[in-house]
Amino acid sequence: MGMTMTQKILAAHAGLESAEAGQLIEAELDLVLGNDITSPVAIHEMDGKMKDSSVFHKDKIALVLDHFVPNKDIKSAEHCKCVREFAAKHEITNFFDVGEMGIEHALLPEKGLVVAGDVVIGADSHTCTYGALGAFSTGVGSTDMAAGMATGKAWFKVPSAIKIELTGELQKWVSGKDVILHIIGMIGVDGALYQSMEFTGGGVKALSMDDRFTIANMAIEAGGKNGIFPVDETAIQYMKEHSIRPFKIYEADEDAEYERVIRLDLGSIRPTVSFPHLPENTRSIDEVEDIAIDQVVIGSCTNGRMEDLRTAAKVLEGKKVKKGIRAIVIPATQKIYLQAMEEGLLKTFIEAGAVVSTPTCGPCLGGYMGILAEGERCVSTTNRNFVGRMGHVKSEVYLASPAVAAASAVTGKISGPEELGM
Amino acid sequence: MGMTMTQKILAAHAGLESAEAGQLIEAELDLVLGNDITSPVAIHEMDGKMKDSSVFHKDKIALVLDHFVPNKDIKSAEHCKCVREFAAKHEITNFFDVGEMGIEHALLPEKGLVVAGDVVIGADSHTCTYGALGAFSTGVGSTDMAAGMATGKAWFKVPSAIKIELTGELQKWVSGKDVILHIIGMIGVDGALYQSMEFTGGGVKALSMDDRFTIANMAIEAGGKNGIFPVDETAIQYMKEHSIRPFKIYEADEDAEYERVIRLDLGSIRPTVSFPHLPENTRSIDEVEDIAIDQVVIGSCTNGRMEDLRTAAKVLEGKKVKKGIRAIVIPATQKIYLQAMEEGLLKTFIEAGAVVSTPTCGPCLGGYMGILAEGERCVSTTNRNFVGRMGHVKSEVYLASPAVAAASAVTGKISGPEELGM
Repeated sequence: MGMTMTQKILAAHAGLESAEAGQLIEAELDLVLGNDITSPVAIHEMDGKMKDSSVFHKDKIALVLDHFVPNKDIKSAEHCKCVREFAAKHEITNFFDVGEMGIEHALLPEKGLVVAGDVVIGADSHTCTYGALGAFSTGVGSTDMAAGMATGKAWFKVPSAIKIELTGELQKWVSGKDVILHIIGMIGVDGALYQSMEFTGGGVKALSMDDRFTIANMAIEAGGKNGIFPVDETAIQYMKEHSIRPFKIYEADEDAEYERVIRLDLGSIRPTVSFPHLPENTRSIDEVEDIAIDQVVIGSCTNGRMEDLRTAAKVLEGKKVKKGIRAIVIPATQKIYLQAMEEGLLKTFIEAGAVVSTPTCGPCLGGYMGILAEGERCVSTTNRNFVGRMGHVKSEVYLASPAVAAASAVTGKISGPEELGM
Repeated sequence: MGMTMTQKILAAHAGLESAEAGQLIEAELDLVLGNDITSPVAIHEMDGKMKDSSVFHKDKIALVLDHFVPNKDIKSAEHCKCVREFAAKHEITNFFDVGEMGIEHALLPEKGLVVAGDVVIGADSHTCTYGALGAFSTGVGSTDMAAGMATGKAWFKVPSAIKIELTGELQKWVSGKDVILHIIGMIGVDGALYQSMEFTGGGVKALSMDDRFTIANMAIEAGGKNGIFPVDETAIQYMKEHSIRPFKIYEADEDAEYERVIRLDLGSIRPTVSFPHLPENTRSIDEVEDIAIDQVVIGSCTNGRMEDLRTAAKVLEGKKVKKGIRAIVIPATQKIYLQAMEEGLLKTFIEAGAVVSTPTCGPCLGGYMGILAEGERCVSTTNRNFVGRMGHVKSEVYLASPAVAAASAVTGKISGPEELGM
């Protein structure tokens, strides 16, 4: 029986000729990731139960301070200190502190630390982002991260898969965010539970790398074990520009088995919004009635990349954030911040009346930099809109693309750019 | 008996021909200021004890969200919401929300809301900043702010004064921050208790407006009721550029009585650092031994203005923040952020490895955006280094100028620019 792309990567990393859905395997890891929230737990595991274990490879661990930095409080300061000291003690090559940092899932591909064919675990649920480059990557708990840092290996149950065949091209103002929200709306937040979401088809080539990162990033929001894209010229070009590591291309067998096949014409997708309090509560922008908002957030590991900022700036150029609306723009990495500044995007944001934050996960998970009060509503380019995710349990988060978020900042209600005559 | 500059302003606003130290007067207010921490308390006073009192003048109240915005947590979000709703209800002209905002004491002069001859109270201790423009301004509690918002008046005990006669000119890399730290070091944190610190002398003309704002800002750190500067061409030019309000120049009488006269040759002042845990614990940079640091903060109502950022950028240009040091730069207002971007300063900071925050008081008062863990040390351009001010009770804050802060970021220990051969 043939293998999916994910199964092939896992089999190869387990030293097996083949692997099938449901099989338990132990795979070699190319990278183990942790952030300022999850790493301290893993570090305590290593220093405690594992009796000060050494790390398996100082170049194959990435520790990124990004959730609550610059430190939002004493507790987060202590967490960061813990990670900093661990990184120094073990001479971790890829430790990213304030000033070198960015949001982990934007930073790692940018730094060239993940390439096609890799197996990556990260103690963060959106680790699945790197599937955009044709890697198998998935979120794990801090204990698995600890074991991964110590041994360089992890046990997996090989996932079955959903094949998502993309055709056509995106309409104007429609982006990867709309694609993944649309899919989650179709299949639900457990629609891909412990499965690979394998994207294929002629539509892939029309998706930019940033679109793919956004789509793979939110595979977990459909319950997926991972999301993964074929490695085409776009992906190869990206890796050549960002990495010196060799990559390996795995392709699904023609007779690979899929639990389900979804065919999706990209051209049919409209700007899509996820209503509170689940990503699956989607509506096309045409189905959204007047919903007044208080805040807009443009950023996160889902949508804080260059294309996202360019789109938002295109919408906001020469316009003003509506009086009474707070618009917060968060470039995902220092490099993106700098490039957005050089392209004049940050100027556009400030002149429109938005504020620009230093890179941070911040408001996405209710950390800081835009927390909501009771009854407040936010249109956000982040990835989750669970109850209380961005603040008060009676606040509401509407997930959308940067284009919709920017347009909503101008109108003060949930709007697409078309409503601005664009 | 003659009057000091402060006494003349207060007398005029009380409708009196003269006022002397110790006299109780009721003065008309030109502006009442509150921020997101202090305003909610005042608003509850007005809505409670004052039974939904209306405000005395909707143009003469400034409400600035700056301490914990974009909202750092649910509580701060609720506070901001309270202020926002109050501002809407009373049609407060000068309400500054996220995106329109900046740190209050940098924002108000920039917006032209304070001019020479004004009497201003603010529910924030550093309201004394506006003395740089020849206004009487002082910090009050939230209850006084409430009474001020309702009546447009406030009771004062007329302060006695210290005359500080400045001569000479500042040396290279020495700024207003060093001047005020030096003075606080001389007289102590209660050296000017409930007194006016009246700056005079030929040295004033050599001080820039930004230097004067910094000096007046920290009058409270010597216990002063206010700090005040004569209104010269520099101040007039600043007001003409920023305000359309008429200003009035008050000058101290020649026979005004002073409790004390301090004569200070600006040329004799060296870069100065306040050691933990009081601003009076000053040492000149030449007396500072090797003190390793963890973090640098450049910003705040004390030192987040254009000159401050220009100086910091000059020091950091082409250099790198030392590995292991977090450097956080916080332009004080949106306008300053934009100008610093256009002048290339933000690029210099990012390229050096610093992060640039949206305007906020943030770390200065232990809010967020750079809180310290146990045992960590920070060189900060802020105004207070009390125990636990920026985080853990066992952390340390060293107050310094932007030049010293920037140089320290490069060396990783407390340093002046001279140590970099500049």
